[in-house]
Amino acid sequence: MSKFDVVAIGNAMVDVLAHEDDAFVVAANVERGSMSLVDEQRSDEIYALMSPSVEISGGSAGNTAAGIASFGGKVAYIGRVADDTFGKVFAHDLRNIGVTFESPLATDGLPTGRCLVIVTPDAQRTMCTYLGAGAELDVSYIDEAVIEGAAVTFVEGYVWDPPPAKDAVRHAAVVAHRAGNKVAMTLSDPFCVERHRSEFLQLVEHHVDILFANELEITSLYEVDSFDNALQRVRAHCDIAALTRGPRGSLIIAGDEVHVIDAAPTTVVDTTGAGDLYAAGFLYGLTHDLGLAHSGRLASLAAAEVISHLGARPEVNLAELAGL
Amino acid sequence: MSKFDVVAIGNAMVDVLAHEDDAFVVAANVERGSMSLVDEQRSDEIYALMSPSVEISGGSAGNTAAGIASFGGKVAYIGRVADDTFGKVFAHDLRNIGVTFESPLATDGLPTGRCLVIVTPDAQRTMCTYLGAGAELDVSYIDEAVIEGAAVTFVEGYVWDPPPAKDAVRHAAVVAHRAGNKVAMTLSDPFCVERHRSEFLQLVEHHVDILFANELEITSLYEVDSFDNALQRVRAHCDIAALTRGPRGSLIIAGDEVHVIDAAPTTVVDTTGAGDLYAAGFLYGLTHDLGLAHSGRLASLAAAEVISHLGARPEVNLAELAGL
Repeated sequence: MSKFDVVAIGNAMVDVLAHEDDAFVVAANVERGSMSLVDEQRSDEIYALMSPSVEISGGSAGNTAAGIASFGGKVAYIGRVADDTFGKVFAHDLRNIGVTFESPLATDGLPTGRCLVIVTPDAQRTMCTYLGAGAELDVSYIDEAVIEGAAVTFVEGYVWDPPPAKDAVRHAAVVAHRAGNKVAMTLSDPFCVERHRSEFLQLVEHHVDILFANELEITSLYEVDSFDNALQRVRAHCDIAALTRGPRGSLIIAGDEVHVIDAAPTTVVDTTGAGDLYAAGFLYGLTHDLGLAHSGRLASLAAAEVISHLGARPEVNLAELAGL
Repeated sequence: MSKFDVVAIGNAMVDVLAHEDDAFVVAANVERGSMSLVDEQRSDEIYALMSPSVEISGGSAGNTAAGIASFGGKVAYIGRVADDTFGKVFAHDLRNIGVTFESPLATDGLPTGRCLVIVTPDAQRTMCTYLGAGAELDVSYIDEAVIEGAAVTFVEGYVWDPPPAKDAVRHAAVVAHRAGNKVAMTLSDPFCVERHRSEFLQLVEHHVDILFANELEITSLYEVDSFDNALQRVRAHCDIAALTRGPRGSLIIAGDEVHVIDAAPTTVVDTTGAGDLYAAGFLYGLTHDLGLAHSGRLASLAAAEVISHLGARPEVNLAELAGL
């Protein structure tokens, strides 16, 4: 039995969320519905214009780790925050939901990253990320014993943005596979796929066993114009691909096995974290031998919970919600 | 016409809110439903045990100021935060809802205050406040021009906890009355009333024109065992008293004029800020000559909005909600 079901690696940050009208997104000149990288000055400029906001721990893989813990899974997180207010909040919120987080809090350099999340009236989220301390996540953060002890090593595509993290992730993948464990990845964001397409293709073809992507991301990866075309491509490369389509549900494909999973019903307030929590439910199920279809249903359930309220971390115990 | 409808003076802080079970309150050894003052070490100890939390700007009078601004009122706030992450969050959230906040952010000394808010399954909130930088609010923060230009100077009883603030508030009251303006006060918390009863009695009898108190606070102030007894006492001292009774509504008394106001219907999620937003609605109405009964209904409406979600700041525009 593994010490951990999953170890998640990602850009650690605190989300700063506010409801804004559509004109705000236009004025901020950021890509609606996506994640834009911004420097500290630009982050401060946009923040200065934002409505009163709520601060909640975030980071894509951090949200996934929190979700797995909420399902009752054994999960560790690797990421870099500073030893400042938001860094302590981030560490607190992970640890107190049951995630093992032993990455040291940096005592010098940049402040903890923050993601300005603009939630528009259609419940869509537009994100402006200042990576801060997260930009210096490097191979020294990869605890080999943790990777070796985790059934799945899960990485977010976003970690390809800060250069030192690439080597860290490649090293983690090698360690994981050497130990006979699986490597999972999410493509994170269509613009992230555009920025790193060739590297992502290589990763997907050679290193990733379990892939998470939404429709825009997977069609961008293969530069094809239909979901079905992308599906035919990805099934040749990954053991398992979980492809999400928002309210139209998701499709899970593993060799010849295919499952169509409906989205769980909910009232959508804020889509932030939908993909992160989908991955949480799926990985929890997979590492507890619940089978692909059941794992997919847990994924949909967790995604539905997180989009029913502001913020990308679950507000209820997911194990109870799922009747586990 | 006054430059400001209201200037609010209070202990400035950021709330750290989490849902916990009843056993947590017992284990934390704090007074259920009330506000306990804690030092930084104790705050850190309780925080270490708390579930993943949400950070939202707070401070009783700060919440009231935010509520008045959300109604469309002209409002200023006086309080002391440090020039740190939470201090900047606090200033941002006030200014960006439309509150004038010109108190300088302190660049030395203690960090910005924080209030750990434990929300139990009955939606009751139990608060542990570390005053931090707020403890050094003193008379130098009282901008006489702002006080002179505000129809009402509103102070929270909580500011009686940090000693230097008492002189600041007394000075503000003198300046306000000298300019022909009104002084309003909330008794804040029954334990706060116990800590400062004799001073509060003197304030209510000689300095306060408009008093806000809930049933526990007003009966504690006069050390009487019934709401009605307290009512007979307070009407002799204040021009207007707005006395709240939770789901049983409120009573507004001004000389011979008496109004019984029903609580507005809502689903209660978190009672944090109920009294603060009641004061916001009432003071907005009063300073816009809407009459006592209409002002009371706005008070109930604002209180109902804030208890329908986590956090003590309004999540919707209160002017729109009220159809103003």
